[in-house]
Amino acid sequence: MHSAADLRLMQTWALTVDKPLTHASRWHPRTEIVSRNAAGLATRSNYATVERRARQLSAALLAAGVVQGDRIATLAMNGAEHVEAWFGIAAIGSICHTLNPRLFDEQLRFIINHAGDRIVIADAAFVPILERLLPSCPTVERIVLIGAEAPPPIAGKPAVGYEAFIDGQPVDVAWGDFDENLPAGLCYTSGTTGNPKGVLYSHRSQMLHTLFANIGENLGLTARDAVLMVVPMFHANAWGVPFATAMSGTKLVLPGPKLDGESVYGLLEGEAITISCAVPTVWQLLLDYLTSKHLKLTTLKKVLIGGSACPEALLRAFDELGVHVLHAWGMTETSPIGTGAVESAAVARLPKKERIAQQLKQGRVSLSVDMKITDDEGRTLPHDGRQPGHVKVKGPCVIARYFRAEQDAVDAEGYFDSGDIGTIDEYGYLQITDRAKDLIKSGGEWISSVEIENIAAGHPKALIAAVIAVPDPKWRERPLLVVKLRPGESATAAEFLGFLEGKIARWWMPDGVVFVEEMPLGATGKLDKKRLRVLFPAVPAP
Amino acid sequence: MHSAADLRLMQTWALTVDKPLTHASRWHPRTEIVSRNAAGLATRSNYATVERRARQLSAALLAAGVVQGDRIATLAMNGAEHVEAWFGIAAIGSICHTLNPRLFDEQLRFIINHAGDRIVIADAAFVPILERLLPSCPTVERIVLIGAEAPPPIAGKPAVGYEAFIDGQPVDVAWGDFDENLPAGLCYTSGTTGNPKGVLYSHRSQMLHTLFANIGENLGLTARDAVLMVVPMFHANAWGVPFATAMSGTKLVLPGPKLDGESVYGLLEGEAITISCAVPTVWQLLLDYLTSKHLKLTTLKKVLIGGSACPEALLRAFDELGVHVLHAWGMTETSPIGTGAVESAAVARLPKKERIAQQLKQGRVSLSVDMKITDDEGRTLPHDGRQPGHVKVKGPCVIARYFRAEQDAVDAEGYFDSGDIGTIDEYGYLQITDRAKDLIKSGGEWISSVEIENIAAGHPKALIAAVIAVPDPKWRERPLLVVKLRPGESATAAEFLGFLEGKIARWWMPDGVVFVEEMPLGATGKLDKKRLRVLFPAVPAP
Repeated sequence: MHSAADLRLMQTWALTVDKPLTHASRWHPRTEIVSRNAAGLATRSNYATVERRARQLSAALLAAGVVQGDRIATLAMNGAEHVEAWFGIAAIGSICHTLNPRLFDEQLRFIINHAGDRIVIADAAFVPILERLLPSCPTVERIVLIGAEAPPPIAGKPAVGYEAFIDGQPVDVAWGDFDENLPAGLCYTSGTTGNPKGVLYSHRSQMLHTLFANIGENLGLTARDAVLMVVPMFHANAWGVPFATAMSGTKLVLPGPKLDGESVYGLLEGEAITISCAVPTVWQLLLDYLTSKHLKLTTLKKVLIGGSACPEALLRAFDELGVHVLHAWGMTETSPIGTGAVESAAVARLPKKERIAQQLKQGRVSLSVDMKITDDEGRTLPHDGRQPGHVKVKGPCVIARYFRAEQDAVDAEGYFDSGDIGTIDEYGYLQITDRAKDLIKSGGEWISSVEIENIAAGHPKALIAAVIAVPDPKWRERPLLVVKLRPGESATAAEFLGFLEGKIARWWMPDGVVFVEEMPLGATGKLDKKRLRVLFPAVPAP
Repeated sequence: MHSAADLRLMQTWALTVDKPLTHASRWHPRTEIVSRNAAGLATRSNYATVERRARQLSAALLAAGVVQGDRIATLAMNGAEHVEAWFGIAAIGSICHTLNPRLFDEQLRFIINHAGDRIVIADAAFVPILERLLPSCPTVERIVLIGAEAPPPIAGKPAVGYEAFIDGQPVDVAWGDFDENLPAGLCYTSGTTGNPKGVLYSHRSQMLHTLFANIGENLGLTARDAVLMVVPMFHANAWGVPFATAMSGTKLVLPGPKLDGESVYGLLEGEAITISCAVPTVWQLLLDYLTSKHLKLTTLKKVLIGGSACPEALLRAFDELGVHVLHAWGMTETSPIGTGAVESAAVARLPKKERIAQQLKQGRVSLSVDMKITDDEGRTLPHDGRQPGHVKVKGPCVIARYFRAEQDAVDAEGYFDSGDIGTIDEYGYLQITDRAKDLIKSGGEWISSVEIENIAAGHPKALIAAVIAVPDPKWRERPLLVVKLRPGESATAAEFLGFLEGKIARWWMPDGVVFVEEMPLGATGKLDKKRLRVLFPAVPAP
């Protein structure tokens, strides 16, 4: 008999995120990384160049005294330098902490201090934000500015241009060669309740996420593809795309801030994009533009849609254009891919209408995620497509504990509660019906605020609809519908209640409707229901 | 500052091979596993059933006293029970050792004793082999026979039917939950020189191989696909297919021993196969059948071809049928996928003729393999598509040391020498030109025996052609062409030399041609050049 240690006879190869870029540089050196800036001008780089410059950035960080485990922040839009930063920071064991420039100042300040960032690599356009934040961010020692030549200090802290920072640095810096469980990235979630919480990705979790993101049923990238990455690198790990494209030697196109229909169309056709990923809003703008100009798409094959539910009209419009929609669900805490509405053989045999209904759900898990739905007491619910429950997930790319938290974020069986409410049907498809904190608990049953909102938003006069719970002495909670009308419109409560009639259960019918001039939104554009509940603590008198 | 240990905040999830089957059973329970037997009859199982029975097999093995690290052999054709055995054995930490029934008795006897197998799970059809082997295999304690009810002892050792062995066993046996670096599988290579050598796959290497095999540019399976797995489960890890299909919830069809064109065609159409994998011979039989019957393929999209070089005519025939050929290279020591001729964007822009030339090469590496070619002194050669060198590979699914070997099988930089000779071109495509041991070293330069063989085999009178080295006082070695003619044909040496003229360099021209009645072949059907060299130690007098 041999001991277990004697039997490790396959090669050692740590799952560290430097490997995809080294591979791309060696085997796909001239494959392009194209960055379009705010003015619409494109800069063309390639994997060989990006790898060389990322190595120079690593060397510059080491020369600045950065050690394993240090947090290095980025505050930048999508661009080749941001890609270099992701790899250059993590490849030496320091942690790439992506900051979301759309957050409120107090959130960003909390996040930088909580993370203890030592260096911030930022777009020059974000200097005004840094001027406001940095006076109260003592851990930040210096700023490296992308797109600036010889910047003055910011809030008294030394600043240097990105090119000057990496210029002349050696390229033979050692990458990887450490424990794959060391952290590689840090991304904070910005819930509307409480302080932001940090998710600390390990090299292993990032690499496994990349592999799972790249299997045939998910992104399935090849070296013939070209990806337009609309999803920002500061949000939810950019869906893992920068790692996946490097792994597959896939052309990567970064669109810059211009996301109107004409700009996105120009990139899709001009760069021969085959796969893209973005939130529904961006696609709606594109489709409106295509319709108005009677245009077709000649190279696009697949779009990954996530971030919020995909409207049926959007899916059908893409279907007519010959573009496959992969509707996905996930969150920062799941790296982020959780499920995707990838057809199984059984679903493929259904009539078209039912297939589309399945495709509009959030979809199935891959091997990397195990999922269950439970009631409030933690009892597992059946996969009948009817009973909604708390969506809980488990897997190598799912968080166990938030950064600097004292307690684990998982239950006794190791599942993380996503905070979402959903059903799972007989085909294994998840459908999200609500956020747990937005559920309305009425007479011991749940009412989905999201479902009522989606229907109410379909009223021709509605611009945005929100449904919140108001306290009720008899039922505990009852729904209240809050509507922002389209410009110039006026409406009555009865009009909206009549519109809902027959479309929802009678006991789901809101107890009132209020019209607002402004709908309160959070930093990332989502409805701020916490604020709405403060504004409307009860059903207003008619 | 936090220590590294504090920062392991993503969930723990060991890469163990039980997970794909558990996933398939939970999320794709009714997806089929179809096994056709020697009589052509199909048995239909599914992932839920296979998982349940695999768990019962695990329980039966534990009840029989099997512990972690024990070697449990299989001697079986492709079938649902063999799939159950792969998972049931490895999921409890014992090692699934696949025996190749086509090997010579002395090789099998050596392998069983070297591995120290405790139990053999075998097809009843292989009882005659076991009767011959087991009298000299002292470590084997018992035999479990698939397809037998109450078998008598074999060579004095107790035998039990597979169904009786698992019947009544519990299904709640614990799977996985151990170190992912523990071994999961064992497969011996049967070189024509020396004793067979064992490759011991770890759970981690098997799982990473599965993930890499399943990325978009390789198998890229989805739950809508159906795979016809022709490659046997006892050879080269079955290209990792049983793990990949389970991971993706893909229908798996096992063809049994009948691999004639009509049988394979019937399965492809009858089971709506989308992807298949086999050696070129099987495909040639299918294409001949399709041509003779004027048939088309309606569901097949992709074939993975490996094991030996893919002839151009085969590739073009599939191309006309609308089936994509993925030409791949690998070996038992690489788990086995090493390279695949997957088009990059640069190759896709070439004219059709050049694209096909690239597709006929062995192809590019994925992230899981790093590759170099070196001269005899170990110096790395350029990627110019001209200079052949020793093909050396590195990665998480590549062997470091053979089972029970005293020394590592890698060089100082950690590369494993594949024993193949090849070029790498500017697109990163490997082309295998020879086996190192078959190279002819003439006047300080290499002559590729394979290249001359391939051309000579194209002579209309040739059935099989072999080129071997014979000693030469001036040039050290010179090529000798050995030909087995088609039945009823006769030919002269001059005819063959004339056929080669203009197709190879003048100094590559064989010094002689000999015609043989029988070509010596090894157990797996490959040319036995060792035997040829004994038969022809010099160029025979004309």
